[in-house]
Amino acid sequence: MQKKDCVINDNNDNNDNTQNLCHVTNKLSHSNKRGNIRLVGAGPGDPKLLTLSAYQAIQEADLILSDKLVSEEVLELIPKHTEVFIAAKKFCANVEAAQAELNRVGLDALNLGKYVVRLKQGDPFLFGRGGEEFLFYQSHGYIPQVIPGVSSCMSAPLLANIPVTHRGVASQFLVCTGTGKKNTIPEIPAYNPIRTTVFLMACHRIRDITKDLMEKGNYPSDCPCVVIEKASFMDQREIRGTVSTIADIIDREGHTPPGTFVVGHACTVLSKQL
Amino acid sequence: MQKKDCVINDNNDNNDNTQNLCHVTNKLSHSNKRGNIRLVGAGPGDPKLLTLSAYQAIQEADLILSDKLVSEEVLELIPKHTEVFIAAKKFCANVEAAQAELNRVGLDALNLGKYVVRLKQGDPFLFGRGGEEFLFYQSHGYIPQVIPGVSSCMSAPLLANIPVTHRGVASQFLVCTGTGKKNTIPEIPAYNPIRTTVFLMACHRIRDITKDLMEKGNYPSDCPCVVIEKASFMDQREIRGTVSTIADIIDREGHTPPGTFVVGHACTVLSKQL
Repeated sequence: MQKKDCVINDNNDNNDNTQNLCHVTNKLSHSNKRGNIRLVGAGPGDPKLLTLSAYQAIQEADLILSDKLVSEEVLELIPKHTEVFIAAKKFCANVEAAQAELNRVGLDALNLGKYVVRLKQGDPFLFGRGGEEFLFYQSHGYIPQVIPGVSSCMSAPLLANIPVTHRGVASQFLVCTGTGKKNTIPEIPAYNPIRTTVFLMACHRIRDITKDLMEKGNYPSDCPCVVIEKASFMDQREIRGTVSTIADIIDREGHTPPGTFVVGHACTVLSKQL
Repeated sequence: MQKKDCVINDNNDNNDNTQNLCHVTNKLSHSNKRGNIRLVGAGPGDPKLLTLSAYQAIQEADLILSDKLVSEEVLELIPKHTEVFIAAKKFCANVEAAQAELNRVGLDALNLGKYVVRLKQGDPFLFGRGGEEFLFYQSHGYIPQVIPGVSSCMSAPLLANIPVTHRGVASQFLVCTGTGKKNTIPEIPAYNPIRTTVFLMACHRIRDITKDLMEKGNYPSDCPCVVIEKASFMDQREIRGTVSTIADIIDREGHTPPGTFVVGHACTVLSKQL
């Protein structure tokens, strides 16, 4: 476990009364000549949904690596004096090159002994290549500390009043990507009435996915679903429909990606009464 | 959405520089004569994994409702002057009565105009009856604000160096309960090689569950799995094995519930090199 490689950080130049409370996440070695790196979950967008540990990491870092998926409001928390590198990743065709550049910038800083924080939207280990970044740094002798974050796979439904599990309605919760290898449609899960299914990165092809849900997955056409756009932001929006209607509704009403696509009977447990 | 029922909280008696940064989660009406309630995710245990919003809610509440699943270290953050009610729920046979008492104490405080925070382990809407508590308060005229939290379904694997998704290994992530209706074994999902499956509340019957995974779910006997005990605590422990060996290993090495049981090939993506 990576935390065994760390020693207690007893830097006390901070009045934060939560400073000395944690077990795992305030341990970071400053005794080593070489740098340290954390892969940190930045949550869905609202900075108040950062963990205390993520907030502290942002305040203490020498260099912050990010990409354009992390919200502006979270990036605004970075102290003025902190070095920041934001990759064009996700918004350019050349994702591999952007990722390689991000890794190189991080490694160069580590070799200079810096404390590097790689901010990742949501949770670092749900999609987004967190495991691959871990392996990259590990292969160069740096074992990243990974800080969990609030993922939109659960927080987007929650903020749209959808409990992903609910007694008598849903006892399983499945998270899928909407983007398969080489931008194809991914494997479509079979319908299970007791399951809430959440697709991330799916809204740009929601017509194909809902068609496959009905034709290949045997989803009933009237199975309720919701697209949550900009979860946790001031302009969060929910678009509600069924598996057979949601694509038309989105065509009619418009949608700005990214969004979270939630399918299952839990969608109406609370909202039908609101 | 509940946030439309709220107005900006412009209480400024706090030096926290993150106070005015958020969109959703710092809105709470104090203009209403009656009380307000938030259902707040307390994370897996380490207080540093609270969100900034949860930390703020704990500091500002008049009354905090909790149960014994929330960690002592999180409860220690509650200011001395704050009223606290901790239900015996989860550690007594009479779960229904304990839940009803918790609800009644919350409702009484709301009717007195208090600001009530219901702390819930992990995320409020993943198991744990969060949706039911929402419906209870809503039926009495109070629409809870729900604050997402870091769930152990993702953070326990993460803290054990398991990325629940990883390119070429796992592109789906399924969360199941290990405890079905009336304490029976729940529905066992079929094996899918590209899926990481996490069982919560499962470790007390891991022999039955792994038997069903192999016999009913067609899981290969050598499919890797890990039990993570006390995730995020100082004494976090991982017990690694395969679907056919983990029950024996746990019998031999001992295990203190609760734990998170993770099954799938993502279990060895990072740890094989550690």
